[in-house]
Amino acid sequence: MRAIYFSQGTAVTVDQPNPEPGPGEALVRVLSAGVCNTDIELFNGYYGFAGVPGHEFVGRIARSPDDPALEGVRVVADINCGCGACRFCLAGNRRHCAARQVIGIKGRPGAFAEYLCVPAANLHPVPDALDDREAVFAEPLAAALEIGQQIHIGSNDTVAVLGDGKLGLLCALGLRPLNPGLLLIGRHEAKLALAAAQGVRTLYCPAGKEDAVLPRLRGFFDLAIEATGRPEGLAQAIELTRPEGTVALKTTSRLPLTLNLAKVVVDEINLIGSRCGDMALALDTLANGRLDVRPLIQAVYPFSEFARAFAAARAPGALKVLLDFGG
Amino acid sequence: MRAIYFSQGTAVTVDQPNPEPGPGEALVRVLSAGVCNTDIELFNGYYGFAGVPGHEFVGRIARSPDDPALEGVRVVADINCGCGACRFCLAGNRRHCAARQVIGIKGRPGAFAEYLCVPAANLHPVPDALDDREAVFAEPLAAALEIGQQIHIGSNDTVAVLGDGKLGLLCALGLRPLNPGLLLIGRHEAKLALAAAQGVRTLYCPAGKEDAVLPRLRGFFDLAIEATGRPEGLAQAIELTRPEGTVALKTTSRLPLTLNLAKVVVDEINLIGSRCGDMALALDTLANGRLDVRPLIQAVYPFSEFARAFAAARAPGALKVLLDFGG
Repeated sequence: MRAIYFSQGTAVTVDQPNPEPGPGEALVRVLSAGVCNTDIELFNGYYGFAGVPGHEFVGRIARSPDDPALEGVRVVADINCGCGACRFCLAGNRRHCAARQVIGIKGRPGAFAEYLCVPAANLHPVPDALDDREAVFAEPLAAALEIGQQIHIGSNDTVAVLGDGKLGLLCALGLRPLNPGLLLIGRHEAKLALAAAQGVRTLYCPAGKEDAVLPRLRGFFDLAIEATGRPEGLAQAIELTRPEGTVALKTTSRLPLTLNLAKVVVDEINLIGSRCGDMALALDTLANGRLDVRPLIQAVYPFSEFARAFAAARAPGALKVLLDFGG
Repeated sequence: MRAIYFSQGTAVTVDQPNPEPGPGEALVRVLSAGVCNTDIELFNGYYGFAGVPGHEFVGRIARSPDDPALEGVRVVADINCGCGACRFCLAGNRRHCAARQVIGIKGRPGAFAEYLCVPAANLHPVPDALDDREAVFAEPLAAALEIGQQIHIGSNDTVAVLGDGKLGLLCALGLRPLNPGLLLIGRHEAKLALAAAQGVRTLYCPAGKEDAVLPRLRGFFDLAIEATGRPEGLAQAIELTRPEGTVALKTTSRLPLTLNLAKVVVDEINLIGSRCGDMALALDTLANGRLDVRPLIQAVYPFSEFARAFAAARAPGALKVLLDFGG
């Protein structure tokens, strides 16, 4: 099979034997995969990554030795593969297993390949109502919806999402059903318009104009969701949050951040990190049409044109770039 | 009356007329006051402070024009004086009023003076069972107990308090009744022994030995309370906290902190700032003997010897220094 191999800032196409499913695993043929900012970070050397990336995907079970009845089922996957024996795994929380492998990120080849092996316990069947290009959003949408699993969001809470990139848009569109008044704050009029078309209130705050726009909203929000992907986003989110309010932090950065935490202490602000979420909830949310992810697709490339696809995904301001494996 | 006036790194004794209570205020004669690390920060120029400091105190109501029946009552005070009209004040949460004055810290003279005026709504009568030297701990103890008001602490949760200074000791002693297995981690054997004498489990971790001691506890705690007063304390607290666990941040610093927040995001850690607390709860806790604060008293000086008292409070490792006003 063909696979993409990342190593120290290079991406090469390799030809290698199909992987063999181990105990409890299924072999999945990839139908569609999405390029995430994390893939770009991995390419750039985050975690010293070397391997086959790709963690947003939909595929079809090609072989399932433990349960052949699953063959042919279309699936997405929870990317966190736990050890199965620690207290987190035993409590059903393999996302936080300290020894976990993470598909396409840590210890396990990912979905920028024609086939990959996935523990059967991580697979979720995709409802027929969803086409591949929607289903591939299950993983990043689950990460957006995770905020509503970690904290209670009331319908009348004042909620802001900072950042109108891929993840910010999914946070705004995904959480709006819980909080119809949610405000998306971003730098890109065209991206804000995508969210506004689905009923999201938006505030345009062009780059460099933060000091003119944001102080008027200082301390206004019960919840500020930081999804800017920029190091200064967290300080802005803290500024916008009311005393005893909450900041949800989605941006991961490999670099240390310099931050004045005095307002966090004095205003007793709750800062909560947020990562992966519930894939079944994301699939249900998509299948029931609570948001339309298709406008977030920037472009679709055949897998054979990975280099072009990845260049498009790395372009500043790019939305979701998908790889089509010719299902 | 005599008062201490701080300005740009100097402390002078001034003689000035007694203050006149405004509408809704009472005049309080100070009986005993405690020196807090915040006073030392104010002395050093934190917030550009200039004025009469002192926010830990017990006094007796000398004059109460609105309710003369209160005269002679012994009281402590919630130090946050709200505007009375904003949504926080109207909800009974004047501690987070944006326009608040804070006794001895912001906009209101404090208790390093023979008399001060306090809004009657902020006063709490002191139970007879408490002597002045215990009652003066109500304010810092309320700040320690605040953590239990912000988050639920289960009796079997794994809880660590980092820092065996005044606030760390009060956190450990104050929260131990909620969590008998709580572990206090500190640098000073003698201070840890004070807590151990009241049933607190302790771990001695001398300065510079953190890398030998703390990694064994990495990710172990459901809740880590950061009360070290040192900038590196927060990173240590984050390291000790399990995935989906909580870090309570008590240390305030006027300086920005450089911090790698990747673990907060990946492990979905909840970081919560914590400041002042419920004075009535603190008084009740003291009056019912749930902890003994007297071993935390380093020394008691007459108010006339403020300079000596303040020097003693500023000495590295000092516990609580009290000022006695000759009740």
